[in-house]
Amino acid sequence: MMKVSGNGFCSPLVVVVLSPDTKEETVAWLLRRMREKQQDGGTLTGLLMIKDLPKSAELLVDPLGSKVEEKENPNIFLVTASWQRLLTGAEDLGLFKEFNDGSMRSFTFINRHNFKEFHGDGDGFLSMAECQYIIKHELETLRAKDETHVPGYAQAKLYPGKSIIRRLQSKKIMIQMFPLHDKEELKRLSFKWYKKVKTSLQPLDNIRHYFGEGLALYFAFLEYFTMALVPLALLGLLYCQFDWENYDKYVFFAVFNLIWCTVILELWKRCSASLAYHWGTLSRKKVFEEPRPGFHGILGFNPVTGREEPLYPNYKRQLRIYLVSLPFVLLCLYLSLYVMMIYFQMEGWALMLYDKDPTFCTKLFLYIPGIIYAVVIEIMNLIYRYAAEFLTEWENHRLESSYQNHLVLKVLVFNFLNCFASLFYIAFIMQDLVLLRQNLATLLITSQIINQFMEAFLPYWLQRGRNKMMMMEIPLNEQGTFDDYLELFLLFGYISLFSSVYPLAAVLVVLNNITEIYSDAFKMCNLYKRPFSDPAANIGIWQLAFEAMSVIAIVTNCTLIGMSPQVRAYFPDSEMHLMLWTVAIEHGLLAFKFIVAFLVPDIPKHIRINLARLDFESMEALKKKKMFEFPVMRRVAGEKE
Amino acid sequence: MMKVSGNGFCSPLVVVVLSPDTKEETVAWLLRRMREKQQDGGTLTGLLMIKDLPKSAELLVDPLGSKVEEKENPNIFLVTASWQRLLTGAEDLGLFKEFNDGSMRSFTFINRHNFKEFHGDGDGFLSMAECQYIIKHELETLRAKDETHVPGYAQAKLYPGKSIIRRLQSKKIMIQMFPLHDKEELKRLSFKWYKKVKTSLQPLDNIRHYFGEGLALYFAFLEYFTMALVPLALLGLLYCQFDWENYDKYVFFAVFNLIWCTVILELWKRCSASLAYHWGTLSRKKVFEEPRPGFHGILGFNPVTGREEPLYPNYKRQLRIYLVSLPFVLLCLYLSLYVMMIYFQMEGWALMLYDKDPTFCTKLFLYIPGIIYAVVIEIMNLIYRYAAEFLTEWENHRLESSYQNHLVLKVLVFNFLNCFASLFYIAFIMQDLVLLRQNLATLLITSQIINQFMEAFLPYWLQRGRNKMMMMEIPLNEQGTFDDYLELFLLFGYISLFSSVYPLAAVLVVLNNITEIYSDAFKMCNLYKRPFSDPAANIGIWQLAFEAMSVIAIVTNCTLIGMSPQVRAYFPDSEMHLMLWTVAIEHGLLAFKFIVAFLVPDIPKHIRINLARLDFESMEALKKKKMFEFPVMRRVAGEKE
Repeated sequence: MMKVSGNGFCSPLVVVVLSPDTKEETVAWLLRRMREKQQDGGTLTGLLMIKDLPKSAELLVDPLGSKVEEKENPNIFLVTASWQRLLTGAEDLGLFKEFNDGSMRSFTFINRHNFKEFHGDGDGFLSMAECQYIIKHELETLRAKDETHVPGYAQAKLYPGKSIIRRLQSKKIMIQMFPLHDKEELKRLSFKWYKKVKTSLQPLDNIRHYFGEGLALYFAFLEYFTMALVPLALLGLLYCQFDWENYDKYVFFAVFNLIWCTVILELWKRCSASLAYHWGTLSRKKVFEEPRPGFHGILGFNPVTGREEPLYPNYKRQLRIYLVSLPFVLLCLYLSLYVMMIYFQMEGWALMLYDKDPTFCTKLFLYIPGIIYAVVIEIMNLIYRYAAEFLTEWENHRLESSYQNHLVLKVLVFNFLNCFASLFYIAFIMQDLVLLRQNLATLLITSQIINQFMEAFLPYWLQRGRNKMMMMEIPLNEQGTFDDYLELFLLFGYISLFSSVYPLAAVLVVLNNITEIYSDAFKMCNLYKRPFSDPAANIGIWQLAFEAMSVIAIVTNCTLIGMSPQVRAYFPDSEMHLMLWTVAIEHGLLAFKFIVAFLVPDIPKHIRINLARLDFESMEALKKKKMFEFPVMRRVAGEKE
Repeated sequence: MMKVSGNGFCSPLVVVVLSPDTKEETVAWLLRRMREKQQDGGTLTGLLMIKDLPKSAELLVDPLGSKVEEKENPNIFLVTASWQRLLTGAEDLGLFKEFNDGSMRSFTFINRHNFKEFHGDGDGFLSMAECQYIIKHELETLRAKDETHVPGYAQAKLYPGKSIIRRLQSKKIMIQMFPLHDKEELKRLSFKWYKKVKTSLQPLDNIRHYFGEGLALYFAFLEYFTMALVPLALLGLLYCQFDWENYDKYVFFAVFNLIWCTVILELWKRCSASLAYHWGTLSRKKVFEEPRPGFHGILGFNPVTGREEPLYPNYKRQLRIYLVSLPFVLLCLYLSLYVMMIYFQMEGWALMLYDKDPTFCTKLFLYIPGIIYAVVIEIMNLIYRYAAEFLTEWENHRLESSYQNHLVLKVLVFNFLNCFASLFYIAFIMQDLVLLRQNLATLLITSQIINQFMEAFLPYWLQRGRNKMMMMEIPLNEQGTFDDYLELFLLFGYISLFSSVYPLAAVLVVLNNITEIYSDAFKMCNLYKRPFSDPAANIGIWQLAFEAMSVIAIVTNCTLIGMSPQVRAYFPDSEMHLMLWTVAIEHGLLAFKFIVAFLVPDIPKHIRINLARLDFESMEALKKKKMFEFPVMRRVAGEKE
């Protein structure tokens, strides 16, 4: 719960940890820069921000003040700010809050009293997660003015406009920066979320209040995906009950899969829009996104805002993307395929060896290629992940969202190939559906066992161990949703691409997802550092990734249908005609999918009407205003009054 | 040129023609309704509009006052309005005009003096086309209040909210309504446009000023399309020069076509956005679109604006679309295919007859199927067009844009099938590339001859005749751009789908387009009534139609490539492998096309920056305003001051 001291200051929000051996000179300089007030001493207003740059953070910083920790590291600081500072920060970030009339509007300091639940000086108006998000933003946009290096560290170069925090991090002077948990609220949340016997769905609003919109959307999607799988799982169970060994019946499942994966993604878009509207992030403008902390360039003026910030020419970024990153990714994909082909060859040899001389020794040989392949894939994944992060950082994207998109895209393509290339090979080149089914089952079951262990048992064990040994309660580093989404993406792939030949897959994934919800909830509340909240309006590039997968699913399911014995029976003489028909129907389905996606509105009607009404009202209001009452416009127009 | 009389009234703008035998009672009532002022006598402001509905038109209406015409029809009226009325109309319509700082902003009456070229009371600020557009809007939104029928015509039913003009038109009481030409400006325009020897491109800005954005965009697109065809045409000429009879070389053209049609459409989007930004229609908000005149329903309150207007439940419209229109269209498509199959059968018979007994008589028989088919297609087209218009009207779309989209879609699908089904049949079922080439050449050349005659010679002849005979100078009814776009769409189809087997097609189309530009320009300036301007931001659903065609072009070109002898030579043994490769490459190209369309921004960077800056400025300005200065918001919030 947020506590406010009498003088309108908020309780500690964010922890900043510097290296224990940081020079005093450096600490003093950093604290001064963080505490620095606006040059004219007044509050931060939009007009001043345009005039006086780089702006100051005006934060309140105190040492941790705990005896135990201070002995180990005296350079741990608690950061907070005055309510007024936080509210102007909320305005800068364009946070949407509920207005008096029930609609969601961009918060502005001057109109603060017209927002719902704004009382007194604003105590409790912003959630703790929002305050922490604001502090994080202020810290990250703390930029060098005329310093050429970090005082005390000549090798930590600075130039006007460079993010100070980022340089401190890259030089390992700042170890970490994370938001504080709120024990009481967390207890209430975890009780609602996973401790009591569940008769309802997850408390998404509470999750959002505590962890922010990005994480709440992840849990909403995980829940939605699980629910969407239930019909598939039931169908799978029924199928197993009656003709478990009849591979020929899979045509029906392939058709069902086709429809299922298109429909659930369309509906999720609408669900997600409803949630985002309800949370005020749907219509939040993206225009004012600040450059990400790692972004560097020559200081100039942003053509949109007129503010001073580092600029980096777009053509240079494009060159880096298309001349370095793209060839690198393609090379890795080629390598991955090459390794897969070696694996299949090795398996062939092992099989041949066993056929020739079926002893125990040669039977062991049968497992060796699979083990080697699994190890090599893991190693490749690891190396590739580092390389992708390095390359995306080096591409120097201005926006965090753009950085994330490029990173996700790189990792996604590689993981997709690693996971599915062998299945594609078995399904369409070898055309061995029995082997496909075996492989799919093995993949799903092993990945689920590993997952259960890593995500459910291990965290539980870790926490028990920690409590027993009374270890220092320093939580694990926070974990983003990246890997969680990636896991869901691959599961979605197994289901939508190939589950028609192994209908039990949906059952396995449902079980997996249910434990995933509980273990993820447990992890978030107990194990990891609290993550900074992220006011997301949708699941971002993952929506696109899932859509792409559903397009690929149409292609694979059509091909599986075309390969099925029942369908082949219709074309006893001509393989060619069968193929023509398959391709024609597949094209028809693809066209149909795009038409459906085009026709179904992404935002439910009542929300569209609400948004249109807000737009209309502000237009009507603008019409009634004389332009000269808008100071910015007047200045731009250069008009005399 | 706009003339203004001393008392601030504009010269006549729009002609309204009632039937000569209209009852006097009706004329008097209509004139009264058109002239009616706001109930409180004040000017029209946004707040009053919300309060006092239905609003009044406040137009100035006078009889034509010409002796000759009055004898034939005394019920011709000239409509205009005061400058102030026109300016408030411009505000209601959200017209974008150039602001003092060079940016384009939504015009508001209260800020009128901050707009560029606003002098005195607004004389010359709005172009004549804009004034006429405003008058048209006012006439069309003149709605019945408590009248149950048109006075004097008991059968012409009215109900609150019904558009009066529309009812008068449907009952043939009002014959027509059209904007007046401005002889002097038209003369200047036509000189610049097509009379002087052309060393430059079309005067698009002048066209836009006189005819509005919609028509100017059509001419811009026609010009762009022609320019884009030039490389294809040059290549085609070169090709004819060297190996005219070598069908095998078409693979190269197919590949070129593939790339060409994707690239030119992507670039056009950017061109079109540039033009629309320059003309102020790009960022014009669509939210406030009034219901179209033909829209009917029970009077209620619009959920967005809160204004009273007819409402019609969406599910009823959807039912009509999916249960009536869609099956009807599908049936027509089936019929069209059926007729085509009969044609091919008849041709087979005729050929058989001629083979058996090759006399002059049987040779004549060879032409009969083609002639019958052509006539049947024309008749089907005609009937279908009427049916499509009737159905789309009956679907009762609220917005004109939605009506247009549904109409275009219906007509497009049918025309596509009519024009291309036989070519598809010849190319892919009969696989007879020689016949395909003959048919394509015949189609293009005959359509071009007919086109030249109908669009170039006929208008010229008509005008000469008219001048000679000193006929009354009543121009032909204005013609929309619908048929012109349809023609371009079909030409684009011939080129992108099949021109690889007949590279001269591009040359023919370039020639056709050049004459098209001249003849269309001549028609617009001399023959037809001036059309009402239409503030379009892009070519609307036609962009989508052309994109869809370019997707189909990828499929056809890939198939043509797969069918080519050179490619077949690589797969001497296996048809199956050839097909697999063709399908794989085609899928790759489709994916690539979507990725390119996704990556290339639709709006050029400098315009995106300008738009973002405007957004940013108005957000900053809003932040600085206390909310209570916006009357609408305060009322909605229901807050006490």
